Amino acid sequence: MAGNSFGKLFKLTTYGESHGKAIGGIIDGCPSGIKLDLEAIQEELNRRKPGQSKIVTQRKEPDTVEFYSGIFEGFTTGTPIGFVIHNTNQKSKDYTHIKDVYRPSHADYTYDKKYGVRDYRGGGRSSARETASRVVAGAIAKQMLSTIKINAFTSSVGEIFIDKPYQDLDFSKIESNVIRCPDEATAEKMISKIEEIKKQGDTIGGTITCVIQNVPVGLGEPVFDKLHAELGKAMLSINAVKGFEYGSGFCGAKMKGSEHNDLFNINGTTKTNLSGGIQGGISNGMDIYFRVAFKPVATVIQKQDALNSAGEIVEMQGKGRHDPCVVPRAVPIVEAMAALVIADNMLLRRQESREW
Amino acid sequence: MAGNSFGKLFKLTTYGESHGKAIGGIIDGCPSGIKLDLEAIQEELNRRKPGQSKIVTQRKEPDTVEFYSGIFEGFTTGTPIGFVIHNTNQKSKDYTHIKDVYRPSHADYTYDKKYGVRDYRGGGRSSARETASRVVAGAIAKQMLSTIKINAFTSSVGEIFIDKPYQDLDFSKIESNVIRCPDEATAEKMISKIEEIKKQGDTIGGTITCVIQNVPVGLGEPVFDKLHAELGKAMLSINAVKGFEYGSGFCGAKMKGSEHNDLFNINGTTKTNLSGGIQGGISNGMDIYFRVAFKPVATVIQKQDALNSAGEIVEMQGKGRHDPCVVPRAVPIVEAMAALVIADNMLLRRQESREW
Amino acid sequence: MAGNSFGKLFKLTTYGESHGKAIGGIIDGCPSGIKLDLEAIQEELNRRKPGQSKIVTQRKEPDTVEFYSGIFEGFTTGTPIGFVIHNTNQKSKDYTHIKDVYRPSHADYTYDKKYGVRDYRGGGRSSARETASRVVAGAIAKQMLSTIKINAFTSSVGEIFIDKPYQDLDFSKIESNVIRCPDEATAEKMISKIEEIKKQGDTIGGTITCVIQNVPVGLGEPVFDKLHAELGKAMLSINAVKGFEYGSGFCGAKMKGSEHNDLFNINGTTKTNLSGGIQGGISNGMDIYFRVAFKPVATVIQKQDALNSAGEIVEMQGKGRHDPCVVPRAVPIVEAMAALVIADNMLLRRQESREW
Amino acid sequence: MAGNSFGKLFKLTTYGESHGKAIGGIIDGCPSGIKLDLEAIQEELNRRKPGQSKIVTQRKEPDTVEFYSGIFEGFTTGTPIGFVIHNTNQKSKDYTHIKDVYRPSHADYTYDKKYGVRDYRGGGRSSARETASRVVAGAIAKQMLSTIKINAFTSSVGEIFIDKPYQDLDFSKIESNVIRCPDEATAEKMISKIEEIKKQGDTIGGTITCVIQNVPVGLGEPVFDKLHAELGKAMLSINAVKGFEYGSGFCGAKMKGSEHNDLFNINGTTKTNLSGGIQGGISNGMDIYFRVAFKPVATVIQKQDALNSAGEIVEMQGKGRHDPCVVPRAVPIVEAMAALVIADNMLLRRQESREW
Repeated sequence: MAGNSFGKLFKLTTYGESHGKAIGGIIDGCPSGIKLDLEAIQEELNRRKPGQSKIVTQRKEPDTVEFYSGIFEGFTTGTPIGFVIHNTNQKSKDYTHIKDVYRPSHADYTYDKKYGVRDYRGGGRSSARETASRVVAGAIAKQMLSTIKINAFTSSVGEIFIDKPYQDLDFSKIESNVIRCPDEATAEKMISKIEEIKKQGDTIGGTITCVIQNVPVGLGEPVFDKLHAELGKAMLSINAVKGFEYGSGFCGAKMKGSEHNDLFNINGTTKTNLSGGIQGGISNGMDIYFRVAFKPVATVIQKQDALNSAGEIVEMQGKGRHDPCVVPRAVPIVEAMAALVIADNMLLRRQESREW
Repeated sequence: MAGNSFGKLFKLTTYGESHGKAIGGIIDGCPSGIKLDLEAIQEELNRRKPGQSKIVTQRKEPDTVEFYSGIFEGFTTGTPIGFVIHNTNQKSKDYTHIKDVYRPSHADYTYDKKYGVRDYRGGGRSSARETASRVVAGAIAKQMLSTIKINAFTSSVGEIFIDKPYQDLDFSKIESNVIRCPDEATAEKMISKIEEIKKQGDTIGGTITCVIQNVPVGLGEPVFDKLHAELGKAMLSINAVKGFEYGSGFCGAKMKGSEHNDLFNINGTTKTNLSGGIQGGISNGMDIYFRVAFKPVATVIQKQDALNSAGEIVEMQGKGRHDPCVVPRAVPIVEAMAALVIADNMLLRRQESREW
Repeated sequence: MAGNSFGKLFKLTTYGESHGKAIGGIIDGCPSGIKLDLEAIQEELNRRKPGQSKIVTQRKEPDTVEFYSGIFEGFTTGTPIGFVIHNTNQKSKDYTHIKDVYRPSHADYTYDKKYGVRDYRGGGRSSARETASRVVAGAIAKQMLSTIKINAFTSSVGEIFIDKPYQDLDFSKIESNVIRCPDEATAEKMISKIEEIKKQGDTIGGTITCVIQNVPVGLGEPVFDKLHAELGKAMLSINAVKGFEYGSGFCGAKMKGSEHNDLFNINGTTKTNLSGGIQGGISNGMDIYFRVAFKPVATVIQKQDALNSAGEIVEMQGKGRHDPCVVPRAVPIVEAMAALVIADNMLLRRQESREW
Repeated sequence: MAGNSFGKLFKLTTYGESHGKAIGGIIDGCPSGIKLDLEAIQEELNRRKPGQSKIVTQRKEPDTVEFYSGIFEGFTTGTPIGFVIHNTNQKSKDYTHIKDVYRPSHADYTYDKKYGVRDYRGGGRSSARETASRVVAGAIAKQMLSTIKINAFTSSVGEIFIDKPYQDLDFSKIESNVIRCPDEATAEKMISKIEEIKKQGDTIGGTITCVIQNVPVGLGEPVFDKLHAELGKAMLSINAVKGFEYGSGFCGAKMKGSEHNDLFNINGTTKTNLSGGIQGGISNGMDIYFRVAFKPVATVIQKQDALNSAGEIVEMQGKGRHDPCVVPRAVPIVEAMAALVIADNMLLRRQESREW
């Protein structure tokens, strides 16, 4: 398997299966001399961890991160930061019933066909548990970026969505409810919807919107590594993501050029921002914003037909402790991946300086 | 500038500005012994080239590709394939009026702020002319892939869209009209719409759908380099793209798990394909399909306010020979980028073989 | 810091400081389905560990490796292999005397100037302790390669050298003495020399020769990533290495073409092997052999002038538990790095197959 | 084939066969705003080109470089620099006698076995003609580096060597003779030796020494990408190179620590420089110097046994226009590769700045 690294200069490599001994990672390329707030890192992990509210999986994992290297007397040293999160609450026996069964719309079948062997317990490497490592790295990236602000929030659950532009929202309210929606009235409807879905043993999809503010002009590498292309890849690499759009997105495809163009102010800002803060793959200093679509979690607590490795269709009763909607716990993951992309491009931008 | 390379094992690096001497590229990693049909490569370029129909820019560029290396007696040799497309029809004087002016929703401002210098003629490196090199490499990738079929087509222009699933379309009809829409009735409406928009000196957005068939099970690297994440990045790297979704896409975010799951047949295929042919980042052998959103071209042949480098708002009359809608010429580019992703992942998959 | 990863497809990333909590790494790209002998991996670590004999440092570190991921029921799964070696015997107080002092011919000064901060305890990241992680990865690579045999041995210590071609040596005797020299008479002289040097509180350099046998034809990527260039980089990345030569090496620079050419046998083997098993950067099936020069360890147990961070020359008494000669413990490191290069190129070679 | 790129941030990718239409490359990552002296680039190529003196091959190739992109009004723009050198003097018929024959100690056999097809004319991709592209990129790197001085020179031919430390040489005399040896008396002996060897239809090896001066402290990435490891790989990637040593090199392996350590001056410089300007993989501000061993050219103008593709030993008469000694033409190649390594590490160093 390749593909366990992300970033060119601020680079995260992760390892670990859902029910193995531990998950973790290495951050290579973090500059030296950054004062790290380790509690803030753990706090980000807590936003992602299971069991945090009634609308997420009731598994209990402390998800405590331990750092092995790269930090000395509270500061980064420039050497690789190795970290680990020990798995403590695996109920691996919960998964013996799927040992030889491929669950529909899971990665069981494709992993088995690709590798010929898989750690079936809890989805193994395909589990979203891997994203805890991303949250650790993203939290460090956020501290490195400091003045750049990255806020993600739940913008829709099923058919329920926030009916306001993000500019009218108060990001300080994102953490004030368990669905992480800064619009209180919408948040309540979303929570009710998820509770209803959960009772049915079903799951539901949703979207997350992310806004990146105070970005300097000039981030992003044109051509193949455009800033939005890197953000798109980052988001699409998160489990259950089916789509990505930035700025005007799919709506922009219905518009005319005379409507869509963002006219300049004399200071280089623009009167509108359908571009989403990026022109030609390079940040223009306006807010970067994008939207990410998550499918409903595939594990439903209902009877479903599945395929076994002998090529038979077998009835399977979904069980285990699963999320009825992945979106609230995915909010910190979206922020983390955005932070990794921005941090990497901040370092890449240094290369291009004309001041030799 | 970094970011001028795409792919890990089947790797394309491109160079060239819109009004420089030439554009071109190097393909590194193409296996040896592949018989190349050079006319078929040129044919792909012809699908992208300007002046091919009344609904695209009327610039005349022959866009003839010349190969400098890597091919011997009709076969690839395994060495890097260097190729060039000479620029022949530059009317650089057409651009002297924008020398010190940043056009709205173009890359003029961001390039200038990032690099402190830019070749302003025809957009320079930010011009979609660069994509001709991608089409060359994609055409070679297609020949390498042979049995895997990649078909892209125009699925919407403005509000006009094909109201059928792709399974009901005849891909052999894609090239039968200038908009590259396999549904004739819709194609006519799209063409009329573009002609109307062009008369207004305006432009319009659209979407392209791409379907990849006969893909073996097991393509794609889980975690950060999921197959759909690579496809998404590839598409988002194309000029004017604002969004990407695969399988159920943004619609999937509104669905319930019990509706969204793709149940298996005993041969491992699935009864439905909301997953879009990919599970956990790995192809499952079903059709891969995705949709790409293109914004309207920013150059409108109307008066618009622009910013100059002195910090003044100046009125600018858009001129030059521009596309009223980028979508028909982008169809071969979408196919090319898809071919590059699939070719790269075919090579990566070899690494994972258990047959040592 | 970049540069903590090695390999393109079989990729090792390491982390960890000499006196931090742990060192470790991630191996990404190891194919699935390889049965791993975990004891054999530990055995390789034991060949490198301190305290193993009277002629190496008397520090006692168990250097026990623990695997966190990527192995299931005894086989590799194709997912990244995360591993850790906890540091257990740090006597960090031994190093307080160098907190603000740059020891001559150490990395203290350069790390401090580059990063502005350093973990000074035991050399931190610059310590050869990092190479334990390489030995773990190399041991896995060796098991993957199976039929390819990699043997390194001490070929000289100071002025004492083996006066025979490697073909006259019995590699099974490498482990029969503490200096790891398969020629018993020479080994004894080397050991006496090191004991004498150690009594003086001094250190001494040496060379290691490595022979790789049963290599298939066709390993190595021409041009920049020639097989011997990758081997050379791998060896030069080991602490204390000052030179690398393969085949005829520096002697070859004194020869004439008519003497140096390796004439063919009809089966494609060659009558001589001054080429060292590589032509044009690609293996030709003959033995690959090379020689690596190690400088004397910089820490001498004598008084020496050093520089402190205030810009003063201070007298420093070398102390701590150090190796009088790095070579015997470097033998498994040389083998490990060679194994990583060969494993990576075995995977790369698959990409080039003509059998599409 | 992989391996046609060099560098991480200042990256060169090359293409081209000896007797194809052209060779060339792309430089990606050169910062914008660098004023380029195109004549100085051509001048570097002229130092490498065939036919320049009586002791090198008498082929006549103008080796004129043409730039296609990345330069605008005399300055780099930050976009990729595409360049080409057209092949003009191929006498491909000179090579029909080796179409099915593997010459001893050439890459004919290994390329054929690896790729199953090869452009046999003039060695194809394995020809040192490829290094002309390196010289172009290296010349641009040199201009970017400006204050850092890189001087290579011929330090030995066969048994004849300069018997002085490099500090006693006047680098301004390197170009004053055709062998590129700054010590006039030694140069004359070397030239006589080569003329004698040439008359015999034979060839001879030699070494090149390279000195890099005015290097700032802090270049190089510790662990796998140590500065000397990158230099070593760069040199070993040049055709015909068999060995690399820096600082004390192989001699250092015979020394004692008390002799080898470089004691500090109060300004951080060192009294001696056996370290070769690098500690722990990072430059310390002292001169970096290293030595590169070149084998004798394999093509001798004598009768030799060769192998044909039918598995028969055939007698072959070497012909064509070949170098009796590769070293004088390799001097600018060594400098170019050194410049690429230093330029890349200058850009990498920016990433590590503590000044966020």
